[in-house]
Amino acid sequence: MNAINPAVSTGPLPASRKVHKPGLIHPQIRVPMREIAVHPTAGEPPVTVYDPSGPYTDPTVETSIENGLARLRHGWIKARGDVEFTEGRSVRPEDNGFASGERLTPEFPARHRPLRAKADKAVTQLAYARAGIITPEMEFVAIRENLGREIVRGSLLRDGEAFGAVIPDFVTPEFVRDEVAGGRAIIPANINHPESEPMIIGRNFLVKINANIGNSAVTSSMAEEVEKMVWAIRWGADTVMDLSTGRNIHNIREWIIRNSPVPIGTVPLYQTLEKVGGVAEDLTWEIYRDTLVEQAEQGVDYFTIHAGVRLHYIPLTVDRVTGIVSRGGSIMAKWCLHHHRESFLYEHFEEICDIARAYDVSFSLGDGLRPGSIADANDAAQFAELETLGELTKIAWAKDCQVMIEGPGHVPMHKIKENMDKQLDVCGEAPFYTLGPLTTDIAPGYDHITSGIGAAMIGWFGTAMLCYVTPKEHLGLPDRNDVKTGVITYRIAAHAADLAKGHPAAKLRDDALSRARFEFRWEDQFNLSLDPETARSFHDQTLPKEAHKLAHFCSMCGPKFCSMRISHDIRAEAQKEGMAAMAAKYREGGDLYVPVNETSEQS
Amino acid sequence: MNAINPAVSTGPLPASRKVHKPGLIHPQIRVPMREIAVHPTAGEPPVTVYDPSGPYTDPTVETSIENGLARLRHGWIKARGDVEFTEGRSVRPEDNGFASGERLTPEFPARHRPLRAKADKAVTQLAYARAGIITPEMEFVAIRENLGREIVRGSLLRDGEAFGAVIPDFVTPEFVRDEVAGGRAIIPANINHPESEPMIIGRNFLVKINANIGNSAVTSSMAEEVEKMVWAIRWGADTVMDLSTGRNIHNIREWIIRNSPVPIGTVPLYQTLEKVGGVAEDLTWEIYRDTLVEQAEQGVDYFTIHAGVRLHYIPLTVDRVTGIVSRGGSIMAKWCLHHHRESFLYEHFEEICDIARAYDVSFSLGDGLRPGSIADANDAAQFAELETLGELTKIAWAKDCQVMIEGPGHVPMHKIKENMDKQLDVCGEAPFYTLGPLTTDIAPGYDHITSGIGAAMIGWFGTAMLCYVTPKEHLGLPDRNDVKTGVITYRIAAHAADLAKGHPAAKLRDDALSRARFEFRWEDQFNLSLDPETARSFHDQTLPKEAHKLAHFCSMCGPKFCSMRISHDIRAEAQKEGMAAMAAKYREGGDLYVPVNETSEQS
Repeated sequence: MNAINPAVSTGPLPASRKVHKPGLIHPQIRVPMREIAVHPTAGEPPVTVYDPSGPYTDPTVETSIENGLARLRHGWIKARGDVEFTEGRSVRPEDNGFASGERLTPEFPARHRPLRAKADKAVTQLAYARAGIITPEMEFVAIRENLGREIVRGSLLRDGEAFGAVIPDFVTPEFVRDEVAGGRAIIPANINHPESEPMIIGRNFLVKINANIGNSAVTSSMAEEVEKMVWAIRWGADTVMDLSTGRNIHNIREWIIRNSPVPIGTVPLYQTLEKVGGVAEDLTWEIYRDTLVEQAEQGVDYFTIHAGVRLHYIPLTVDRVTGIVSRGGSIMAKWCLHHHRESFLYEHFEEICDIARAYDVSFSLGDGLRPGSIADANDAAQFAELETLGELTKIAWAKDCQVMIEGPGHVPMHKIKENMDKQLDVCGEAPFYTLGPLTTDIAPGYDHITSGIGAAMIGWFGTAMLCYVTPKEHLGLPDRNDVKTGVITYRIAAHAADLAKGHPAAKLRDDALSRARFEFRWEDQFNLSLDPETARSFHDQTLPKEAHKLAHFCSMCGPKFCSMRISHDIRAEAQKEGMAAMAAKYREGGDLYVPVNETSEQS
Repeated sequence: MNAINPAVSTGPLPASRKVHKPGLIHPQIRVPMREIAVHPTAGEPPVTVYDPSGPYTDPTVETSIENGLARLRHGWIKARGDVEFTEGRSVRPEDNGFASGERLTPEFPARHRPLRAKADKAVTQLAYARAGIITPEMEFVAIRENLGREIVRGSLLRDGEAFGAVIPDFVTPEFVRDEVAGGRAIIPANINHPESEPMIIGRNFLVKINANIGNSAVTSSMAEEVEKMVWAIRWGADTVMDLSTGRNIHNIREWIIRNSPVPIGTVPLYQTLEKVGGVAEDLTWEIYRDTLVEQAEQGVDYFTIHAGVRLHYIPLTVDRVTGIVSRGGSIMAKWCLHHHRESFLYEHFEEICDIARAYDVSFSLGDGLRPGSIADANDAAQFAELETLGELTKIAWAKDCQVMIEGPGHVPMHKIKENMDKQLDVCGEAPFYTLGPLTTDIAPGYDHITSGIGAAMIGWFGTAMLCYVTPKEHLGLPDRNDVKTGVITYRIAAHAADLAKGHPAAKLRDDALSRARFEFRWEDQFNLSLDPETARSFHDQTLPKEAHKLAHFCSMCGPKFCSMRISHDIRAEAQKEGMAAMAAKYREGGDLYVPVNETSEQS
C-alpha cells in the first residue's frame, strides 16, 4: 500500500453488475443500482438492489484515491446559478492539531475552490423543494428508491403496518420534492461534496444506516480511514460519520470526502475541542463558528449539533446511573456549568443555520442527554432535550435548513415506541436518526445484537436512519471485521423494518432468496445474501466440494431428512392430484381432503 | 481426550461462585445459583444470576462423564410412592442404526433400571399440581426463579408491558403449583432423568432458551455431543434438544442424558425414521410407539410430536414459496399422502399421552407446517395446524400431560404478535416455544441475528422458551463457536424480553453492569457480562495493559473525550451546588436553573 495513494477494496460483489438508470426530467443523471444475476434454471430476471457502494464496485471505472471521485453533481449545482466560488478559509496549523513534518498527513493533491451561496441565498434542497423545484438530486433519489417497484407495480398486495408512514406504491420526483418541502425527509448534499450520489433520509423511504469511522489520537492513518469508508459502503452503509479526534483531522477528512460517494457527517465540536487543547471550558463560539465554516467548505454533508443540552437540563442528569454518555453532550454540559451560561450552540443556533444554508449542510440535532443505560431510558433529561430539539427544528426550517433528529441510546423494548411517537410529535415529523437503541446492558461484546433488536423495532416504528453499533462498542476501537459486522447487522435491522412497514419492493429480495433456497440453487442463495462471502464459507466448512453446491440437500439434515426435498416430492404428487383445487375446496369449508389411492414414489 | 471418558469444559466463570439455596417445604433441595462478585470499591453485594450450567461450573464437585451426574431427584421421585422399576425395553441393533464393532458408540457404563408409573397412575407434575401437591420440583423452581428478588422486594417499582402475563413480585411454591395446574407452565422432568435440576417454562416466569445439538450420519462422536451439551449450558442454555440422526442415536443419547443437568428434548420421529431405513412411507405406529417407550425409559424430558400435520392440511402448502420446512412435518406429510391416511400421530395421540403420563415426558407439539420464508408467514397451513395443536393440548391435559406448543419460523416483524395472540387463544395459554422467528430471509450466515430480533419480540409478547438459531442456520452444522454465539444471542433476546415484560429482578444485572461502566470498574463490566471472555479480549485488543483496566477512560474516546469522566466532574460540581435540589425545582416547574458563580475545575 502506497502511503499517498493507498489501495482500497474494489471489484463487484459476486454475480453482481452495476447498472445505471437515467432521469426523465434530468436526463444527465445516472442512478446506480446493483443487479444480482440468478441461475438460468430459475427463469427469473436479475434482482435489483440498492447500492451505496459507489464506483468502487464498478469494474468499468478506474478509481484512484489521489484523484478522488468524479465530481458528478458539480454541474447540477453550478447550473442553479445561486452559488459562487470563494477563496475560502485558509488551513491553519490547529486544524490538524499542530501536526507537522512526518506526523502531518499529506494534503489531498487537488485543491478545489469552495462554493458558497450568493448573497444570502438558501442553496438547500429544502429551499428548492419549497420553491416547487425538482432538482436533479430529487429525481436521482426518486429513481434510486424505486428499485424493483416497476416489476410489482400494479400487481401489488401491500402488506405491513407502517404506523402512520405513507410509503407510495411508486416514488415520483414530485413525491420526493413534497417530502423534502414538508421537512419529513432530507437529502444531505453539501454543494462542496459534488462527488456524492444523492440519497434520502425519511420515514416514507427505505430505512438507511450510518457507519461511524474516525481516527483517534494514537491509531489509524488516512489510508486506513479511507479504506474503512470504502469498506463500510461496500457492505451497505448509506452515510458515514467521521468521528475523528486527535491530530490531522482536517487533512484526513479531506481525503475521505473527496473519495466518498455517500454523505459524510461530522460532530464539529470534536475538532473544536482539539483546537482548544481538549479543555472544554476554553471552547468559544468564535472557534466553533470557524470550524463550521472550515468543514462546510470541505463538503461535510451533515453536522451533529448538540444544541439541545441546555444549562437547566444538566441537573436532571445528576441522579442517573450513567450520567451523560454523549461525548458532545458531556463537553457542552461541562462548558455550561463552568461558565454558568446557556450553551453557545443554543444561543447562536440561528447563526449556525445561516452557515448551513449557504452550503446546504443538513443538521443532525444531537441527543447529548440520551440515556446510556436501561436505567436512564426515557427520563426527564432525555425528553426535556427532545423538546428543545423540536424548538430548534422550527428555527432551522425557518432558515430553509434540512434537519434530522438524533435519538437514543439504551432503551428496553417496551419504551422504544414512546421515543418514536414523542419525536414525531415534538419535532414535526423531521426524520429520526437513532443509535440502536440497545435493549439490554448485559452483553458487551455483542452490542451490535443488543442494539440490532432495538434498531429493527424503532426502524419499523418510523426511524429513518439507524446508526450502527459494532461488536466493540463500550470496549474498544472497531477493526475492519467489526465494521463489516456492524454494517451487515444494521442492514438486517433496516431491511426487517422495511418489510414490516410494508415497503412494496422490500420483499422481492427475500422471495428471490427463498425460491433459490427451495430450489437448491446454492450459488444464488449465496449471491442474493447480504454477505455472500460468509454464506459461502459457512456452507463450505461442512460440504466443501463444488458438487455439493448442486446437491438437493444440505449438511444440516442430509438427504433423508431434507424437508425441502420431501416438499418437492409432495409438490410433484400435487400436480398429479390437483391438490391446489383440493386446497381451495378446503379453504371454502368443503369436505375434508380424502385423496384417491395411488402408487408410491421413492423418497 | 479419552474416547470413553472425554473431557468437557469445566470450572467457574470469572469472579463467579456457585451457591445453593435450601428449600423450606423440602429442606433437602439445594437450588444452584451463580454469584458474581464485584470489586470492593463498589460497596455492593454480589450479583446473583440464574445458572443452568450444572455441577460443571462448581469446582467443589468432581464430574466424570463415565459416572454421569448425581441422581439428585431419584429420592424425591421414589418418595412419591407411585412409581416402580421395570425391566424396560432391551436395546436392539436398530436403535443404534445397526452400528457394530468399532463403529458402535460404547454403551454408557452404568445401567439404571427404568422407572415407570404404577398401574395407570399419572406421575406428571401436572397431575400433582392438580392434586394440590407442591413437589420438590415446584419448590426448586420457585426458589430458582426468585434470583435477587428478595433484595428488591418491597422497594419494587414495576416497569414493563407484559401483554397479559402476570409476573408476581415474588414467586412462591404455591404460585408455581397453580401455574402448572393451569397448564400455563411446564416443568419438564422425566422420572428417568433424576440428574436434572428442575426448571420451569411459562410466560409468567423468566424466558428460557433451548440449544440444539445432535450428531449426523457423518459427523461428530459421542464425546463431541456431550461436550456440546456442557458447552451450551455453560453459556446459558436452559434445555438442550438432541436432534441426532444417523447411527448410534440410542447410545449417544444415553451419554447425554446421564450427564445433563438440564431437560433433554428429542424428536422421536427422527430415530423412528432411521429404524425404517429412512423411507418415510415405511413408518408405522408400532415402531414409533416403541421408540417413544425407548426414549421415555432413557429419560428424555420432552418430545416434539408433529401430530398437527393432518392429511387435509397438506394441500394448503402446495402454493407456498418454501413448502414444508420442518423435517418432522415433511416426513409426516409424505407418509400421509402416500398412504392416503390421516397421520398416525394424530390418530394415536391419546395412546401417546398414556406413555407420556407414565414417565412425565412433556409434549412440545411440533409446528410441522411452520413457514420457512417471509412469504409463507401466517398462512392458512400454519394457522390450520395451530388449531389442531390447540385441540391436542386439551387431549393431553385431560390425560394429565404437560404441554408446550412450538411456533415459527420465518415471520416479518408486523406478523409476530398475531402468532402469539392466536397461540394463547387457541391453545388455552399453554406455553409457547418458538424458533426465532427470523425477520428476514436475506442474511444467511447471520440468522442468529435475523432471528434474535424476532425472538426478543415474541419473548416480550409472551413466548416462554426461545429455540436458538446459530450463524450456520441454512448453511451447515454449527461448531463450538457457533453454539456459543447462538446461546449468547438468545440469552440477549430472552433477557431483553424479561426487561420489557417488567420482570422484577431482570434489571438488577443491567444496573449493576451500568454502574460498573460508569465507575470505570472494567473487571466488573467483563465479569457481569454474558460473555466475560469476549468482553475482556475485545478490550485488550486496543488497551492490553493491566493498568488500563484501572483507567478512567477507554480506547474509543481517550481521556479528553470521555463522557463518563466528564459526567463525574459534573457530579462533583453537583455535590457542591446541590444540583439535585435544583433538578427537583426544575421538575416542579420553578425558575430556570441559574447557578451562582464558582471556580473552574480541571477537565
